[in-house]
Amino acid sequence: QTSKKLVNTVAGCADEALAGLVACNPHLQLLQGHRVALRSDLDSLKGRVALLSGGGSGHEPAHTGFIGKGMLTGVIAGAVFTSPAVGSILAAIRAVAQAGTAGTLLIVKNYTGDRLNFGLAREQARAEGIPVEMVVVGDDSAFTVLKKAGRRGLCGTVLIHKVAGALAEAGVGLEEITNRVSVVAKAMGTLGVSLSSCSVPGSRPTFELSPDEVELGLGIHGEAGVRRIKMASADEIVTLMLDHMTNSSNVSHVPVQSGSSVVLMVNNLGGLSFLELGIVADAAVRSLEGRGVKIARALVGTFMSALEMPGISLTLLLVDEPLLKLIDAETTASAWPNVAKVSVTGRKRSRAAPAEPLEVPDTTAAGASASQQVALVLERVCATLLGLEEHLNALDRAAGDGDCGTTHSRAARAIQGWLKEGPPPGSPAQLLSKLSLLLLEKMGGSSGALYGLFLTAAAQPLKAKTDLPAWSAAMEAGLEAMQKYGKAAPGDRTMLDSLWAAGQELQAWKSPGASLLHVLTKAVQSAEAAAEATKTMEAGAGRASYISSARLDQPDPGAVAAAAILRAILEALQGPGA
Amino acid sequence: QTSKKLVNTVAGCADEALAGLVACNPHLQLLQGHRVALRSDLDSLKGRVALLSGGGSGHEPAHTGFIGKGMLTGVIAGAVFTSPAVGSILAAIRAVAQAGTAGTLLIVKNYTGDRLNFGLAREQARAEGIPVEMVVVGDDSAFTVLKKAGRRGLCGTVLIHKVAGALAEAGVGLEEITNRVSVVAKAMGTLGVSLSSCSVPGSRPTFELSPDEVELGLGIHGEAGVRRIKMASADEIVTLMLDHMTNSSNVSHVPVQSGSSVVLMVNNLGGLSFLELGIVADAAVRSLEGRGVKIARALVGTFMSALEMPGISLTLLLVDEPLLKLIDAETTASAWPNVAKVSVTGRKRSRAAPAEPLEVPDTTAAGASASQQVALVLERVCATLLGLEEHLNALDRAAGDGDCGTTHSRAARAIQGWLKEGPPPGSPAQLLSKLSLLLLEKMGGSSGALYGLFLTAAAQPLKAKTDLPAWSAAMEAGLEAMQKYGKAAPGDRTMLDSLWAAGQELQAWKSPGASLLHVLTKAVQSAEAAAEATKTMEAGAGRASYISSARLDQPDPGAVAAAAILRAILEALQGPGA
Repeated sequence: QTSKKLVNTVAGCADEALAGLVACNPHLQLLQGHRVALRSDLDSLKGRVALLSGGGSGHEPAHTGFIGKGMLTGVIAGAVFTSPAVGSILAAIRAVAQAGTAGTLLIVKNYTGDRLNFGLAREQARAEGIPVEMVVVGDDSAFTVLKKAGRRGLCGTVLIHKVAGALAEAGVGLEEITNRVSVVAKAMGTLGVSLSSCSVPGSRPTFELSPDEVELGLGIHGEAGVRRIKMASADEIVTLMLDHMTNSSNVSHVPVQSGSSVVLMVNNLGGLSFLELGIVADAAVRSLEGRGVKIARALVGTFMSALEMPGISLTLLLVDEPLLKLIDAETTASAWPNVAKVSVTGRKRSRAAPAEPLEVPDTTAAGASASQQVALVLERVCATLLGLEEHLNALDRAAGDGDCGTTHSRAARAIQGWLKEGPPPGSPAQLLSKLSLLLLEKMGGSSGALYGLFLTAAAQPLKAKTDLPAWSAAMEAGLEAMQKYGKAAPGDRTMLDSLWAAGQELQAWKSPGASLLHVLTKAVQSAEAAAEATKTMEAGAGRASYISSARLDQPDPGAVAAAAILRAILEALQGPGA
Repeated sequence: QTSKKLVNTVAGCADEALAGLVACNPHLQLLQGHRVALRSDLDSLKGRVALLSGGGSGHEPAHTGFIGKGMLTGVIAGAVFTSPAVGSILAAIRAVAQAGTAGTLLIVKNYTGDRLNFGLAREQARAEGIPVEMVVVGDDSAFTVLKKAGRRGLCGTVLIHKVAGALAEAGVGLEEITNRVSVVAKAMGTLGVSLSSCSVPGSRPTFELSPDEVELGLGIHGEAGVRRIKMASADEIVTLMLDHMTNSSNVSHVPVQSGSSVVLMVNNLGGLSFLELGIVADAAVRSLEGRGVKIARALVGTFMSALEMPGISLTLLLVDEPLLKLIDAETTASAWPNVAKVSVTGRKRSRAAPAEPLEVPDTTAAGASASQQVALVLERVCATLLGLEEHLNALDRAAGDGDCGTTHSRAARAIQGWLKEGPPPGSPAQLLSKLSLLLLEKMGGSSGALYGLFLTAAAQPLKAKTDLPAWSAAMEAGLEAMQKYGKAAPGDRTMLDSLWAAGQELQAWKSPGASLLHVLTKAVQSAEAAAEATKTMEAGAGRASYISSARLDQPDPGAVAAAAILRAILEALQGPGA
């Protein structure tokens, strides 16, 4: 079974991926007849040094994403994980030379095929009289003993593109750029780790890992790493990686120690979630700063991938101020991120939480008797909801997850607990605001949020006045907020049906001389009728909307609860004898 | 079996991912006590509109990556795929208000939880006197029939962040920004497709797909899409997606048609290789331009992910010039890519291949007799290599993949074929250059590249002179190039051992009065001895370096072949009677 890929043909992958990136970036052009991308403003580079890089495909956005002003002049791509053709490298060198550039630097990752093919093209170009230099980047810190083939070229190569690009843009000559980036290339190290393998289009995964293993010291061609370690936490793995890559007994280590300044790259090898990338970045920053290392810049993203490998690599580059200036220089390369030109270490990473608003003294505040009446109403509401718990749960089992009664009881108990803490506010606006926060926190779920919204919005008209028209306006405001954010409308078989019906009746409070209890009685009756009517409604919102209407022959529990709350309020206001 | 993740604890994922992204970006700060990130230059935004967005974690780089000058002021993150807490949203609104901003726009993706929680925080903030507006983005084009809940908010939300950010940066007021982005939000559509699912940390994958199915019309929370389709080519899938999302019988379509100008986003849902992303981008550009649609800008990358889901989404936004100006406006947001401010459609996407260099008339060119001698030498070399094919293959079977003889025979037959086409150049420099290209193309592999390198470098000293010192210099140049790019040294058990030994003897050609044949004879003997001596060498480079030296008791076939070539040259130069 070969891997599932979103491709057209295996043979066309490298060409089409390059064509896609070039098509989407008008700053780039293909070189006809070759798998080569070049800056489209090539003819404006007369007298400057050209920078060419490249290698096998499968490492995108490298290298095409790093073409642009201030980075690469062009890129030569091979087939997936295969060195590019000598003829195409030579064509790219000729093209930039014929555009009038003053010599070319080839930036090559250290792999035998790339060294040979770029080297050969270089020799041929030199035989034609074109000045061409070559820097071979080997930033791999995996091998503790020196291999004849040298350190592999990994994600750090992108930093060399950046540094060389800034120098070329500044008009520095070929020899000096070559010398300077050769020094920079020796001051960095990269180490990879992966949870699993990747697969070349048309092939199977290149290695297998058991669920409790991770591969350490990977290259970027799907080859296995230097060893397998037990799955561990992100902190442990990052610490192990940083230990390994900075350990002076490792011949390929990067000499980072307390007091060093570094650029940190946290590179997605392809298929890791960006969430995990952030967690790894957090672990890396903490671990490095814990070692006394100063992180001057940090880059987090996908720079040099190994197809869809679910892993990361960490790169450390030792930097001083002049080198940082080159890292910070402007570039139009599409895959170079917006990096803040400020040190990561030493910045304050949080700010104080905002001040809570002062409680505004409520001009409508009533006395102890109002507070007492509020307590009576709330106690009645709570008792009603607690009494309905089983009934509401039963109704909910037919249409939802059967917890409607439980949710409302939780709210009731929270209100009872709150009432025990002291007398409730007598001011209606303050009362509704406090209840809103309480339900939001303690009732939870969509019901808590919807009642919270209703009460918050309803509190507003009651700030200035608390007469009957203000209460009617409060009901309207609450209903409006509930509909606006909850997206339910009357008829959708929700708690809104009862409240809406009541709200229609409560409009009567706006008329002069309207009776509190008379209107409220009609509103409660209307709410109860609306709750009952939800029996025949199709669910239009909320969880019940996923249930076929044929299976719903009971009223909506939320609507029943809302009507019951209104009746409890009415009964409490009617007094003990009602 | 829950999925393998690079995390510390399941509960800490959202906090640590946010902390990592904030730590690596000094332009950002956390708000103490909340999962909120804000611009660290918040206090410089007095009098401007603040833009807050956010939602569940797991969509990184959204939304934190889009905080910065010209984009968001801040972000409120929930747990993975879970709406943020109302208290944190309210705290973020208060924090930007207390910094002196002139009102806040909440940019919310259309999900019930986000609508309710952002809506509630908005109502509470308004109750405190803070001007807060809210835009709910629903760009999903998956559902052909209108759902009550409306279209889901997907990757297009990032474009709203950009447009609103550019307006806020320009000092536009809250009401106008709200109105303008509300219009923009209605002019776009997004559709997703995935090869597989994703899994929330600590959980299993959210759905299963068979190897020949892909999921179409996905959201970004790992939920299944609207339908499964048979696995097909990237072109077919992209065409199907664009058909679906622009089909006017689809109520959630985006009205893109021939003549429309669009911004195209090709978004990695998380775990797809960037190679495939490029292929999809290529397919999308071809398909859209084939419909007569003008692509004004194209963004390719990871913007709004669903953890590690291996899929993509395509977003189309209808644009005019004023809207493009906002898309093009500067931003410091780390995850907004460098987008060329030039139309994608209508640009020339390739440039002509470079001119081949003119063949320089060779001043050392000899006559027909020189050419004839060259032909005799080459024929002898070819005959020798063909005769050795089986022997070389046998030697190679012990240490490599057993094709050394085949490779050299292929080279021999290529040279024989070339000789039949006409007389070879009599000029040594031209001869070696031509042979270099021939071997590179026809011999292939590392041997072809190494001989190509050797011959290209060796040709250079022979351009000016062709006397014996020049031939010695040619040998030196060839050996140097071979070592430099191939990284093998004498003693590494490679073809270099024979050539190096011969080269040492050929130094004698530099002495006045040295004899061609006498020195060459000694060189051949020395090369043969060196080839024999590889028997006892440990492989230090090339494929054989992976074999334990104990198993190598035969000479290196490459070294044997090189010595045989030198002897064939000697014998041919000694004349027919030698």
